[in-house]
Amino acid sequence: MKQINRTQNIYDNDKFFNGYYNLRKQPNNYNILLEQPTMLELLPNVKGKSILDIGCGMGDSCLLYEKYGAKKIVGIDISSKMLEKAKKRTNSDIIDYLNIDMNSINKIDGKFDIITSSLAIHYIQDFRSLTNSIYSLLNKDGYFIFSQEHPLTTAPRLGCEYSLDDNGDVIHYNLTDYMRPGKRKVEWFVDDVIVYHRPLSEIINTLIDNNFVIMKMIESKPDDTTLQKNPNMINEFHKPSFLFVKAKKTID
Amino acid sequence: MKQINRTQNIYDNDKFFNGYYNLRKQPNNYNILLEQPTMLELLPNVKGKSILDIGCGMGDSCLLYEKYGAKKIVGIDISSKMLEKAKKRTNSDIIDYLNIDMNSINKIDGKFDIITSSLAIHYIQDFRSLTNSIYSLLNKDGYFIFSQEHPLTTAPRLGCEYSLDDNGDVIHYNLTDYMRPGKRKVEWFVDDVIVYHRPLSEIINTLIDNNFVIMKMIESKPDDTTLQKNPNMINEFHKPSFLFVKAKKTID
Repeated sequence: MKQINRTQNIYDNDKFFNGYYNLRKQPNNYNILLEQPTMLELLPNVKGKSILDIGCGMGDSCLLYEKYGAKKIVGIDISSKMLEKAKKRTNSDIIDYLNIDMNSINKIDGKFDIITSSLAIHYIQDFRSLTNSIYSLLNKDGYFIFSQEHPLTTAPRLGCEYSLDDNGDVIHYNLTDYMRPGKRKVEWFVDDVIVYHRPLSEIINTLIDNNFVIMKMIESKPDDTTLQKNPNMINEFHKPSFLFVKAKKTID
Repeated sequence: MKQINRTQNIYDNDKFFNGYYNLRKQPNNYNILLEQPTMLELLPNVKGKSILDIGCGMGDSCLLYEKYGAKKIVGIDISSKMLEKAKKRTNSDIIDYLNIDMNSINKIDGKFDIITSSLAIHYIQDFRSLTNSIYSLLNKDGYFIFSQEHPLTTAPRLGCEYSLDDNGDVIHYNLTDYMRPGKRKVEWFVDDVIVYHRPLSEIINTLIDNNFVIMKMIESKPDDTTLQKNPNMINEFHKPSFLFVKAKKTID
């Protein structure tokens, strides 16, 4: 039998959770300025649609889908701490939160018109199996739209380093191990946060192999207004932080 | 009127041509070990098919397509020197060589079942317009299959540099300017060879915008046998040299 590691539940670690929670409260963070606007840009009209959000965290996306008129929303997350926050913020009959691992979405009942995931896919070891389950959960003409850490960020096995000039500006990022997929241990609030690196071609081909049609791919980059709000984002021009993919199920 | 720069004709420069010609004669070069096998892997059965090869150079691919039973083959190249070599090697009624720029393929008569291009696309400024012309030249269910320098190689505006350890092994590549598309001047046999950098997402989205369906994407990486023949290729695991895309025209 194939052994699948349960996804690491780092968001239930107190130190990690507090660090992450404080980061997300900052007004000009990468989620608010870069990630969320691009996910919205890729999202079709959600009015009357059923939506599953994988790694829903504190419920930001679910609440947005409700506001935009979705018919039924399911948010799943491995972290009970995150879902506690989500539930406190939610007062709705059409949103359900389920405390399950991404590896177990094949147990979810029903089908969806849209499946989204914000910055969670890089935590899963078996993207092929996840993609397969997502395909099964989608209605025909349904969309799978996700963001994840860009492979240029997850690639280095010893963490993504860079060189600075005398002004503290990034001269270059150190690129290694891009074509070596697999587990990476990174430091983010705590040691040993586990992410899985996949080259871009592996991500795209896995979707295609599972009969998805690639509709659009975006690599993150700030516009001028965003750059004024967070000048550090100039470094996105050297190395994008996030990858976004919109894929469609065109056959049943 | 939109100004399109004519593609640089570097292959007709004597110094460049001689350098390139000698490189291609080496048995374990990147073309023979990495590029050609992957292009073949992506190629459908060519028996009875009409094929256009863009940037055909010395005719390697055209001769291969003839051997595999193609019905009609057109090879185009901007370099008359390269085509001279190609013509000397070719004795066939079904292969035509045309000395034209990639920018002018819309002037070619007839339609094709397959359009290929090996390591030429990074020389063209207007990939959108090229993709549009290729779409028009393809029959329904036709394939566009190409290789080009990988965007991780073309990205840095000051050339792709790296750091070595005491043994001369690559520690890391210096990644800069990945999200800044545009002209790059690189040194290869001569100074100021002009290539155009495009992030991967721009390449893929341009194909999709022109109604192509992405069938497969490959980033170059040697297998064990290849690595024994050319141990330098271990560096492909840090940064792939080539990108390959197979796209299909599914509607007319």
